[in-house]
Amino acid sequence: MIYRLNETHDNKLRSWVESANAPGCDFPVQNLPYGVFRRRGSIEEFRIGVAIGAQILDLRKAYAAGAFDDTDELTLSAIEAARASTLNELMALGPDAWQALRLAVSRLLREASPAQVTLRQALLPQDEAEYSLPAKIGDYTDFYTSIHHATAVGSLFRPDAPLLPNYKWVPIGYHGRASSIGISGQRVRRPMGQIKPTGEDSPSLAPSARLDFELEVGILLGGGNSLGEPVPIDEAESKIFGLCLLNDWSARDIQAWEYQPLGPFLSKNFATTISPWIVTLDALTPFRTPWSRPAGDPLPLPYLDSPATRSLAGLDIDLEVLIQTARMRERNEAPQRLSRSNFKHSYWSVSQLVTHHTVSGCNLQAGDLLGSGTQSGPAPAEAGSLLELSNGGRKPVALNNGEQRSFLEDGDTVVLRAWADKAGFARIGFGEASGTIVEAVNVKP
Amino acid sequence: MIYRLNETHDNKLRSWVESANAPGCDFPVQNLPYGVFRRRGSIEEFRIGVAIGAQILDLRKAYAAGAFDDTDELTLSAIEAARASTLNELMALGPDAWQALRLAVSRLLREASPAQVTLRQALLPQDEAEYSLPAKIGDYTDFYTSIHHATAVGSLFRPDAPLLPNYKWVPIGYHGRASSIGISGQRVRRPMGQIKPTGEDSPSLAPSARLDFELEVGILLGGGNSLGEPVPIDEAESKIFGLCLLNDWSARDIQAWEYQPLGPFLSKNFATTISPWIVTLDALTPFRTPWSRPAGDPLPLPYLDSPATRSLAGLDIDLEVLIQTARMRERNEAPQRLSRSNFKHSYWSVSQLVTHHTVSGCNLQAGDLLGSGTQSGPAPAEAGSLLELSNGGRKPVALNNGEQRSFLEDGDTVVLRAWADKAGFARIGFGEASGTIVEAVNVKP
Repeated sequence: MIYRLNETHDNKLRSWVESANAPGCDFPVQNLPYGVFRRRGSIEEFRIGVAIGAQILDLRKAYAAGAFDDTDELTLSAIEAARASTLNELMALGPDAWQALRLAVSRLLREASPAQVTLRQALLPQDEAEYSLPAKIGDYTDFYTSIHHATAVGSLFRPDAPLLPNYKWVPIGYHGRASSIGISGQRVRRPMGQIKPTGEDSPSLAPSARLDFELEVGILLGGGNSLGEPVPIDEAESKIFGLCLLNDWSARDIQAWEYQPLGPFLSKNFATTISPWIVTLDALTPFRTPWSRPAGDPLPLPYLDSPATRSLAGLDIDLEVLIQTARMRERNEAPQRLSRSNFKHSYWSVSQLVTHHTVSGCNLQAGDLLGSGTQSGPAPAEAGSLLELSNGGRKPVALNNGEQRSFLEDGDTVVLRAWADKAGFARIGFGEASGTIVEAVNVKP
Repeated sequence: MIYRLNETHDNKLRSWVESANAPGCDFPVQNLPYGVFRRRGSIEEFRIGVAIGAQILDLRKAYAAGAFDDTDELTLSAIEAARASTLNELMALGPDAWQALRLAVSRLLREASPAQVTLRQALLPQDEAEYSLPAKIGDYTDFYTSIHHATAVGSLFRPDAPLLPNYKWVPIGYHGRASSIGISGQRVRRPMGQIKPTGEDSPSLAPSARLDFELEVGILLGGGNSLGEPVPIDEAESKIFGLCLLNDWSARDIQAWEYQPLGPFLSKNFATTISPWIVTLDALTPFRTPWSRPAGDPLPLPYLDSPATRSLAGLDIDLEVLIQTARMRERNEAPQRLSRSNFKHSYWSVSQLVTHHTVSGCNLQAGDLLGSGTQSGPAPAEAGSLLELSNGGRKPVALNNGEQRSFLEDGDTVVLRAWADKAGFARIGFGEASGTIVEAVNVKP
């Protein structure tokens, strides 16, 4: 593990940005996630900010105001890279630079910092901001790391053998579509596609009637590798900049008809929504958990195994998915929780995903995004998709207001949230990734 | 069809670049494919050129030499975009601009052109050039459009039902890896991966022992669509800039173990090789063929069908794959042909691929690359992969020099070639996409 607890993780730290000290706040001074923002409705250039309480510290303005004038060379290289319009440049500098910038920003934002006088003009309230993708995403790969999700979905198709023989050996993944990744608030048009109902002779083109969310963690890579040069397991962590929330919207009926033999395609590529704030792996240091395998499961092959990755490979991050239907919104009813899970249930660690991805020689690049796959927990109520929660659509989920859902309807907003919380440490929140379903376009059937 | 025969396709045209008039030349003045090049071994910026005979016309130099001084506005916008280091800007201008630039370059390169005096200094011999990817490729999608390949591969796994029920309805495709796409001449490191031999209890990490090529056509998109707005079938052609050769290197043993349930991943993502020259759809106008379905096959669903796409949807392009083993190279023996096929056998047209890809709402972008899938013809000798030619590795292919191949060995160079040829028209060649296998890296197993 390359990150260690240091002064930036100290639970006692408070910020001169008062909202950062509120209990339950996602963005205390111990978090300091990065995002790309501008004033909502403006035509300003997007720029990098750090979330602090209910505010955003504009790094470009902070630099211009002289806040980093007396800093060392490493921090200076990082803050200069952070004046760009995406995180790619900063990410490409590597963990030493990321840690240096985190320390400098932490010190600037602490209660007694003399910089607060000048930095107040570099703040923008989050509710006055709009966000862009935090990085130029080159390639996007989606994994399948929840054995509970794989088993639950497998049992819908193969009741006798739900889990395929490769699952406990291979971190299963597939390449996804980068161009349709959007930021929280995305309006997701219900996809059209070929659908073949059971018993019908032929498919027809129709709007998906089994539109679903998938509760996932996104892993934003800050470093890569050259083509043909795999990343050893003990170096994998240094390639990971941070995590976010990711909703891998899925059209189950399109998927069922198209996916043999080459995997999901149109059933996934119409939209993927991520949260705007990238929580660094550094900020999550207190929440690492030992990695373990259930008794009887095979150990990973040596290229995916090392003492370091075994000791603290997991991440204890609470995950939650909520729904707000159109009717709830009309009546000003808050989103209702559908499920709660935790990233620690992941069968494969984030380091294992990076190493496996590159063992073929495949080159990763700063700005690549990995999806964890749907993070369902062991209990049925911890499922990360409606497919699972409604048992394949057979048992609709009852909502508090009398509505029910087997799959998503037009007007539904799905909200993903996440946070890490542990006695003795500040709560590290992820904000949210929300998206709203809008009606399908009219294509001649 | 948006392209019509015009003066640029005239078989009688000759060029003042003498080598362009040689019989069998890939790049006569009727072709004019675009590529990105620089002088080999130099540190010059890569720039856009047009292949003419054995030479490259440097468009940046041609512009600077005043060759386009008296041109109209549309052509001017195209040539100005063509001074970049990739084709993306030019491609984003659309078919009118592409046609205008083709006409202007054709006139400049014709036998009697007065521009030849100044343009001779804008030529570089192809054998003094090195190439870069012709475009910044955003997303890469690989299709599966040869029913002969799908049937042959399917019969290796499912002798009783080789073709899956969706094949004749859905243009099957999957997302591929963009970062590992390289240009002809690529050195392809044999991938490591998990391999589970039949009868073994568990997999192990090993170099692929069933490394294969796939003979494909690459389709470079020049235009895209907004997220949520499908491209109607009659507009699909306007999104296609041109075609190239594409080798979708595949590790069959890694693929067999990893691909369920989400498709190929490490078995494909270690390398994809394309040819440097993009032959425009315009140049291929004489080689369009009527599209047809075998009797009894279903008609495509209406969104994939239109009178225009039926009349001239196919492309009569000869395809060839050759091998040069290390021993052949040592003895100065020419590459030996392994197979010959034709793109007209494709079950789905290039327009159908574009429309299907977007019917979900997925957004395509200028610079996206589509692979056609392995273009095997109806006869066994027309197979586009060793997997098929060697009947799943059971019947090695005998080479003329006494060697044999079930799959590729280290040192093997695979060369893909293509050309369109028809009485009354100039031969339009594609050049080649070659790649050489180098030994696997040593990863702890």
